[in-house]
Amino acid sequence: MQIIRFKDPQGYVQTGCDFDGHTAAKLTGDLFDRPIATDTRAEVTQLLAPIDPRAIFCIGLNYKSHAAETGMELPQHPVVFMKNPASVTGPNSDIVIPGCCALEPEVDYEAELAVVIGHTAKNVTPEDALDHVLGYTCANDVSARRWQKHAGGGQWVRGKSFDTFCPLGPALFTKDEIPSPQNLGVTLELNSDTMQQGNTGDMIFSVARIISFLSQSTTLMPGTVILTGTPSGVGFARKPPIFLKPGDVVKTTIGSLGTLVNKVVAEK
Amino acid sequence: MQIIRFKDPQGYVQTGCDFDGHTAAKLTGDLFDRPIATDTRAEVTQLLAPIDPRAIFCIGLNYKSHAAETGMELPQHPVVFMKNPASVTGPNSDIVIPGCCALEPEVDYEAELAVVIGHTAKNVTPEDALDHVLGYTCANDVSARRWQKHAGGGQWVRGKSFDTFCPLGPALFTKDEIPSPQNLGVTLELNSDTMQQGNTGDMIFSVARIISFLSQSTTLMPGTVILTGTPSGVGFARKPPIFLKPGDVVKTTIGSLGTLVNKVVAEK
Repeated sequence: MQIIRFKDPQGYVQTGCDFDGHTAAKLTGDLFDRPIATDTRAEVTQLLAPIDPRAIFCIGLNYKSHAAETGMELPQHPVVFMKNPASVTGPNSDIVIPGCCALEPEVDYEAELAVVIGHTAKNVTPEDALDHVLGYTCANDVSARRWQKHAGGGQWVRGKSFDTFCPLGPALFTKDEIPSPQNLGVTLELNSDTMQQGNTGDMIFSVARIISFLSQSTTLMPGTVILTGTPSGVGFARKPPIFLKPGDVVKTTIGSLGTLVNKVVAEK
Repeated sequence: MQIIRFKDPQGYVQTGCDFDGHTAAKLTGDLFDRPIATDTRAEVTQLLAPIDPRAIFCIGLNYKSHAAETGMELPQHPVVFMKNPASVTGPNSDIVIPGCCALEPEVDYEAELAVVIGHTAKNVTPEDALDHVLGYTCANDVSARRWQKHAGGGQWVRGKSFDTFCPLGPALFTKDEIPSPQNLGVTLELNSDTMQQGNTGDMIFSVARIISFLSQSTTLMPGTVILTGTPSGVGFARKPPIFLKPGDVVKTTIGSLGTLVNKVVAEK
């Protein structure tokens, strides 16, 4: 099932599937357990991020190619940070350059596979980990590099948590549609240039190992979203560096999960 | 108003005030806007953390005395990290030493003033910041030091996010009860020894400045909890170091906000 979240013409938030570009079949039942498509279709006025996360965990430096371009050592364990859940934005919504990042370009992109937890996970083995997954979607782990590296005392959360810094979508593909999360292309286009082109097969820690690691003595609640790291090609590691600027269009494509398109604007 | 969250004899979660040790007046209305005490009292079977956080931001190194004992430079900006919302536990509940921390002692305490956001805050000035606060409670930012420092690639989230690593309570004091959050004693007792004894007046960044800083281009949703840092006296900085072990009792007292008591046990 390909699940979307959207606003209908009355402004109500709905979940649906079988989206034809204009309308979707409304869902009933428990989104995290067994969502059921109804015969009722609703008009889709605006696509939203397919999930309003309970928490957002992120894994840093999880592709060998990206670790190499940052000059950092390969991690022994997954590098874990979080983003504010309010940083989420939807497909076709704007990435807003914060006022405090406007003086000098610093806002960067990171195409990532996002995993959505469906069933509570705690102390799960890598073998059982994917049983706890509801599905997958495309994510962009937007990052303000000066805030990430220098203004947060070395902690990445502040530079990763500005509003609109977590575009998700366009749809949540339930796991039955994705036979293996470790063989998906990861592509990011900035305007007409391909900036990132990797494959989830190159992850240092697989999706199953990440979930198992995060769940050690730790409850991953339904609705928890995990961003699984980005391949090489990010803006700050380029020579010369490339950062997002108002007017840019960013397209994140993960395997067959569709393309997440976001325009960049300045904060008003 | 002193707000508690609790289980009643039927196992339902309720919010109340005017807790007499056995019963509390049930609350109605919007907790984040204008909670109203009713004439109905309910029996309190188990106290819970007074809030189920939408997100947990934490500030590191926010007392000069603690920055000094860790040997780290005074931060130019608040050092920001997050904890998993599922790490919350309540008063009189156990702090559980994770299985993966059992080999060598490493689990530490940090007594902290917790601030609960009531009204959405974004781009607020320090002058207006406290208008967005619902109230205050006691917190213990429990930390697994090896996981915090070494196993998370320098990011603190993994070592701070184990289940039960965020005791909160016993009650949420609405801000009208706390004339100034910058003149509250911060005390932590481990068994019968006083380990931390500070005052929120020694914060490097005040509560108002922290909220303003976090809200820059960033939405702090109602129910967001902010842990504001800990004074000196934490276990890992002592010579010799002291870590929590099964059987310990930890008491965190913040000003007139009461005492948060938690026993330490090993994960089963």
